[in-house]
Amino acid sequence: MLIVMKPVATEGDVARVCRKIESMGYRPHPMPGAQRTAIGITGNPGPLEPAEFETLPGVAEAIPVSKPYKLVSRELKIDDSVIHVGPETGGFDIGGQELAMIAGPCAVESREQIFAAAESVCRSGARLLRGGAFKPRTSPYAFQGLGEEGLKLLAEVRREFGLLIVTETIDPENCDLVEQYADVLQVGARNMQNFSLLKRVGRSKKPVLLKRGLSATLEEFLMAAEYVLAEGNYNVILCERGVRTFADHTRNTLDLSVIPAVKSLSHLPILVDPSHGTGRRDKVIPMARAAVAVGADGLIVEVHPNADHARSDGYQSLYPDQFRELMREVTSIAAVLGRTTAWSPAELAAQN
Amino acid sequence: MLIVMKPVATEGDVARVCRKIESMGYRPHPMPGAQRTAIGITGNPGPLEPAEFETLPGVAEAIPVSKPYKLVSRELKIDDSVIHVGPETGGFDIGGQELAMIAGPCAVESREQIFAAAESVCRSGARLLRGGAFKPRTSPYAFQGLGEEGLKLLAEVRREFGLLIVTETIDPENCDLVEQYADVLQVGARNMQNFSLLKRVGRSKKPVLLKRGLSATLEEFLMAAEYVLAEGNYNVILCERGVRTFADHTRNTLDLSVIPAVKSLSHLPILVDPSHGTGRRDKVIPMARAAVAVGADGLIVEVHPNADHARSDGYQSLYPDQFRELMREVTSIAAVLGRTTAWSPAELAAQN
Amino acid sequence: MLIVMKPVATEGDVARVCRKIESMGYRPHPMPGAQRTAIGITGNPGPLEPAEFETLPGVAEAIPVSKPYKLVSRELKIDDSVIHVGPETGGFDIGGQELAMIAGPCAVESREQIFAAAESVCRSGARLLRGGAFKPRTSPYAFQGLGEEGLKLLAEVRREFGLLIVTETIDPENCDLVEQYADVLQVGARNMQNFSLLKRVGRSKKPVLLKRGLSATLEEFLMAAEYVLAEGNYNVILCERGVRTFADHTRNTLDLSVIPAVKSLSHLPILVDPSHGTGRRDKVIPMARAAVAVGADGLIVEVHPNADHARSDGYQSLYPDQFRELMREVTSIAAVLGRTTAWSPAELAAQN
Amino acid sequence: MLIVMKPVATEGDVARVCRKIESMGYRPHPMPGAQRTAIGITGNPGPLEPAEFETLPGVAEAIPVSKPYKLVSRELKIDDSVIHVGPETGGFDIGGQELAMIAGPCAVESREQIFAAAESVCRSGARLLRGGAFKPRTSPYAFQGLGEEGLKLLAEVRREFGLLIVTETIDPENCDLVEQYADVLQVGARNMQNFSLLKRVGRSKKPVLLKRGLSATLEEFLMAAEYVLAEGNYNVILCERGVRTFADHTRNTLDLSVIPAVKSLSHLPILVDPSHGTGRRDKVIPMARAAVAVGADGLIVEVHPNADHARSDGYQSLYPDQFRELMREVTSIAAVLGRTTAWSPAELAAQN
Repeated sequence: MLIVMKPVATEGDVARVCRKIESMGYRPHPMPGAQRTAIGITGNPGPLEPAEFETLPGVAEAIPVSKPYKLVSRELKIDDSVIHVGPETGGFDIGGQELAMIAGPCAVESREQIFAAAESVCRSGARLLRGGAFKPRTSPYAFQGLGEEGLKLLAEVRREFGLLIVTETIDPENCDLVEQYADVLQVGARNMQNFSLLKRVGRSKKPVLLKRGLSATLEEFLMAAEYVLAEGNYNVILCERGVRTFADHTRNTLDLSVIPAVKSLSHLPILVDPSHGTGRRDKVIPMARAAVAVGADGLIVEVHPNADHARSDGYQSLYPDQFRELMREVTSIAAVLGRTTAWSPAELAAQN
Repeated sequence: MLIVMKPVATEGDVARVCRKIESMGYRPHPMPGAQRTAIGITGNPGPLEPAEFETLPGVAEAIPVSKPYKLVSRELKIDDSVIHVGPETGGFDIGGQELAMIAGPCAVESREQIFAAAESVCRSGARLLRGGAFKPRTSPYAFQGLGEEGLKLLAEVRREFGLLIVTETIDPENCDLVEQYADVLQVGARNMQNFSLLKRVGRSKKPVLLKRGLSATLEEFLMAAEYVLAEGNYNVILCERGVRTFADHTRNTLDLSVIPAVKSLSHLPILVDPSHGTGRRDKVIPMARAAVAVGADGLIVEVHPNADHARSDGYQSLYPDQFRELMREVTSIAAVLGRTTAWSPAELAAQN
Repeated sequence: MLIVMKPVATEGDVARVCRKIESMGYRPHPMPGAQRTAIGITGNPGPLEPAEFETLPGVAEAIPVSKPYKLVSRELKIDDSVIHVGPETGGFDIGGQELAMIAGPCAVESREQIFAAAESVCRSGARLLRGGAFKPRTSPYAFQGLGEEGLKLLAEVRREFGLLIVTETIDPENCDLVEQYADVLQVGARNMQNFSLLKRVGRSKKPVLLKRGLSATLEEFLMAAEYVLAEGNYNVILCERGVRTFADHTRNTLDLSVIPAVKSLSHLPILVDPSHGTGRRDKVIPMARAAVAVGADGLIVEVHPNADHARSDGYQSLYPDQFRELMREVTSIAAVLGRTTAWSPAELAAQN
Repeated sequence: MLIVMKPVATEGDVARVCRKIESMGYRPHPMPGAQRTAIGITGNPGPLEPAEFETLPGVAEAIPVSKPYKLVSRELKIDDSVIHVGPETGGFDIGGQELAMIAGPCAVESREQIFAAAESVCRSGARLLRGGAFKPRTSPYAFQGLGEEGLKLLAEVRREFGLLIVTETIDPENCDLVEQYADVLQVGARNMQNFSLLKRVGRSKKPVLLKRGLSATLEEFLMAAEYVLAEGNYNVILCERGVRTFADHTRNTLDLSVIPAVKSLSHLPILVDPSHGTGRRDKVIPMARAAVAVGADGLIVEVHPNADHARSDGYQSLYPDQFRELMREVTSIAAVLGRTTAWSPAELAAQN
């Protein structure tokens, strides 16, 4: 059930509806929009009676919901969600006019490496740094990240360069640690249906970057996000990173059509990861251009200062000068769609 | 085996190498490039001795080939192929600076319908008209096209609007008829490995638009093109139109990463069909933008003057005003990549 | 529309209904069953009025059809179809109690090879010989079969060993030749939606073995069969041969669940090809056992007298003694399901 | 590196090699086989020198390993692993001659339901009961299981019927609870690459049933098992439960060819889940027959005493009498492969 408030409804009207829902033993999820507020109800075992709500002051309509997701649905919240990352003042808005450019190495490997990476992506215009301290790896014998030492290095980088930190959390207990350091908690593709982890990040104060699973349908992807919102964390950023198909010219098949599909069903922002989405360095820039052209809200890209000696994913990491070229190209494409990057028009003109 | 000629080699040198190859019982395929000519050899049952050729005048190198394709390979021809469509003078170059914009209905349904479609796409800047007279349909009971009557209507449209005609041929015998009317012979996705048809169009004088099969790997796709070139028709235009995956939010999954992959392996131009590639009208424009951004040489798009009453594929056909919007958006994206459409900058500025 | 006749309806009643259908401009397809006859109607552009038929003598019911297929449907014909292969007297019934065991090399390579193959599979209990004279190959430079010479060798083998011949036809014109020699016309997976070929074999007197396409859904598979039946050839044998998926431990993924799915929707028999279905010799026998256990009506298996030197598909061809082992194992499994092979119980006991 | 001991090597020889490995800072994994013991080494960052080990008493050979998995590999342990489930005395051996038949409802719903289910599957010959107390569900609003109350009911059932309990654990913390009640810890398909959970069950004393992920390659599947063995728990049972493909006639595509593929690469037993593998009740029995015929070591099947009112997966759960029919059919098939079920030959004969 969705309760749609009238544009003239007061905060008191919204509060009254929420109390009513709580008194019935369910959970209210007020979602303020530009024009009006909508209130989702979760926890109800079956259909509710619209009349119970439509008679309350300020209520425009009570709509029964048929889709399995509610809180992520554009029916609940008609305006695009803009997710604020970082401290109260400053920080960055994902889903706003400026594209979110997240760049950095697959894994934090050393102080030298992460500082060199941060320095180069910062100079090219990235606002957020990616880098894993805990790495889920197919092999138990592969490098699994530096752990807390890696998180501390990321915190140093934030202080030094002002970059916001996006890093992965791999299980509920691990989240206690990671959320002390990260600005955005990343949930990896293999964990998209790790429901214990989804519930845990749903109780965090930090925004969540949720990657699509390798064989997740759109509905499963949105339902995974719904888990996070249902726990009260509405700051979810989706990310397409390629799905598994028979095609063998790329490591995964980047499914760009999911961007407009998400935009029509949900209010959440969505990014594209062309690095994992192709698995090959020489396909990253063309697919980054395509991702921006299709309407993504930003990119998450692997960049390594010394890609040929990376401890993981080196073959898909851009060299620093390639990332600068990527920024140049996507800034031009973004302009066609009325969007921007950190580059000013003057800066872009100087490069062209 | 590829024979690479020196930049200074004369036509006589090239002819001498070709005669040598013929005298051994094989087939020479000279491919002139901007800097130099390369000559492919087909028909040899096994490896040849490089020294047999490297001693001839004008020969720079004889390179044994390891990939299964030869004639479509960028190793044979380093420059992009530009495929001329239409009469000797006039016509259109696919693979040149201007993007090939092919638009029109799924099927020719009537004189009124095809004239209305042609008029609208022509006005919006398409240079080529698509429209099927012979339609391969999943059901034997579905509308299978108007047949030769449809071809005659397409010929009328060409005279009336100056549009070049792209239409499908469905078997070797049918090709005898279709090539009398078409400017480009389309081979559909379901026929990508219909080798009898590939050989037949390989003996035609008309360019061939070859669509990727629903589950074709990149290598199978290039090998299908190789069939056409091996028969002597080097005018092949590839087309990505979506592959079959588990994803269910679109009818097929458009695999845009195949564009840069083809560009690195082959000299042939490649288009994208966002209509079949998504199967949904509301995804066509975003994916068209992405296709141009990734580097495709053009688009083939379904447009129907009365899409809601189309006899086939209505749900994925654009309305005429949507096609105009598509042209506006892709013209802007194209400019970023140094490419153009039929729209002049002034025309584009007037629309923006 | 399906017309279901009463059990007591006479041949005259059936003929009257057929004439009525023809007089309306449509095509009747009478299908005699064990208990009653059903008559399919094709060619009608839209729904028909049941009352037009239900008032005729002998008619039990006129049922509007919602599924896209009619003639292949078990609604039309409730009893399993048994397809007679070979001369009027003698020959073999596919879909009856005895499993159809079709074995032989991928391609006819020489007189010696095909005679050796025939001799060994015949001795092990195969009733039908497979062997391609026209081979669709991914590469234009690969061995494409011996052509008519191969067909003549197959005809010799039939005379010598009494084996029935299953061989592929690759286009409508080629079918004119192949049907002079073959007992069963095979349509390959890549041609499953070559509708011109489907229509051509639909006009043949010979039974058709129709292989499932690499990415064909069950509905597309049945619709391809429907094309053949709609032309008047009701003798279609389906064949599952693996579909294309991400899994890389076999060349294709053999989808055995399609066997019970076909059995519930259609009256047509269905075989399994574990050779193409796995692409690896060491998986053929286990999957052959599974295919018989799931309820397939037989197997088509590649066996080569000299598999390590085969000109095509050698890595998936069984050695002759492996085929004997396969026969032993599937005969035992078949017995559990109340089915048989050419082996008598005594013969089987002697082997165990 | 694998160290293969001589057949005559003593326990002291094995211990000496293990100490040597530990002294180098790596981890030894001794695996006793019927003829000889092999010792895997993990934790080494790169290749080791064979001569360091081949000079020790009792060592036959030191083999460098190229595949990414070691402990699950048949190279390390040539004999099939038989996994003992249950108390020291009594219990059941998975991977032995008798097929493991695991049956029961998707979820424990109530005392009445789980007792009725246990009673019926026990009477039909199942030795192990399945039933989820913690259910990973696509929707946060769906029934997620009874939690510890469900585990307590399962413990009661074990006492009452002597059935061994297979139940799912969903995260590391949850495992602390589940391992107090379960005889086998199930790791679900969505958690196949939840590496934190894999490591946790790797430190448990209880055997682990590891389901293949929806888009897991064979190598990824074996590497997930390797995570468990690498922590010291060698009692892993694999389970194929269908993969995600384009095919839509079943919920997943059951990939039976993975059974012989696992058998050739690994010593671990593997079961098949035809319930999730097809998602449709009417396909479960045919695919169960096929699974046993292909060589699986057992089945895990959903059976519900009141399937039409199940709180989850009702459409794929067998009715109790269908499970009895399944047992009858698979017992007959098993006999062909020299395997048995709980049914004696007399019992089987009485049913046939």
